Amino acid sequence: MPLLLRDAPRPEDEAEVRRIVTATGFFHDFEIEVAAELVRERLEKGLASGYRFLFADQGETVLGYACYGEIACTIGSFDLYWIAVDPAAQGQGLGHALMAGVEAEVRALSGRAIYAETSSKPQYHPTRAFYEKFGFTAVATLPDFYAPGDHKIIYSRLVG
Amino acid sequence: MPLLLRDAPRPEDEAEVRRIVTATGFFHDFEIEVAAELVRERLEKGLASGYRFLFADQGETVLGYACYGEIACTIGSFDLYWIAVDPAAQGQGLGHALMAGVEAEVRALSGRAIYAETSSKPQYHPTRAFYEKFGFTAVATLPDFYAPGDHKIIYSRLVG
Repeated sequence: MPLLLRDAPRPEDEAEVRRIVTATGFFHDFEIEVAAELVRERLEKGLASGYRFLFADQGETVLGYACYGEIACTIGSFDLYWIAVDPAAQGQGLGHALMAGVEAEVRALSGRAIYAETSSKPQYHPTRAFYEKFGFTAVATLPDFYAPGDHKIIYSRLVG
Repeated sequence: MPLLLRDAPRPEDEAEVRRIVTATGFFHDFEIEVAAELVRERLEKGLASGYRFLFADQGETVLGYACYGEIACTIGSFDLYWIAVDPAAQGQGLGHALMAGVEAEVRALSGRAIYAETSSKPQYHPTRAFYEKFGFTAVATLPDFYAPGDHKIIYSRLVG
């Protein structure tokens, strides 16, 4: 079945996002709640929420998604808040398709750069490798930001 | 008249915050709207908004305020979102009183560090000098974050 990228959120996406984010095993319960809440905010407030989505659908199933948005008080800086692919569908280029879709949309919105943040902890090595594979560069580290010994690494990628 | 620090927001504070932030001359219209909106969110949602306030009152008049809060998904990292003093009341130690009050409250909440962000532009030199005076250190710079040539500087201060 073909993969379709969709930017309009549906009410069912809240449960799909919760399922995917949980399945990755990368996130704490409170982070999973944040991921689901962003879908609700987008559904309730529309683009005024500041959150944009891209869902990778196969039939009725969501296999992955990205959540991003322009950063308030900036001209052309975007945050990539979430990008996640169902573990059962990884290794098929979905991350690449989502990232390319986000970048195309950011460029269409006159965006100049995309930022992403992650933890320095060893279990986030795949996340950091993912960003680096897609041309993101670590531009700053905030020591002990998330917790003692758990640093925040800020990545950015210029949108050419 | 004595200065009183107050953490419970009142409906009148939205207009007071708008007045003070506008009077400083440091902020764009859209930033002033953000400052006012944070007061509304705090009034509507209480502490669940994630925003805490400290107002420096003299009688019925607010002379300065700070807005801060724990950063989601962190253990003990706080953001100082706003700190502003009415220009007519500057030079009397109000910034110091507000900063000391915020720090005491962050410490009481088991906070480890306070973050503040500002622009690299020359007109924000007084802001940067203010943070540095209160023991904040520039820990990261994000080039061209706000706009081309307008970098974001991230400051942090450990709460001992």
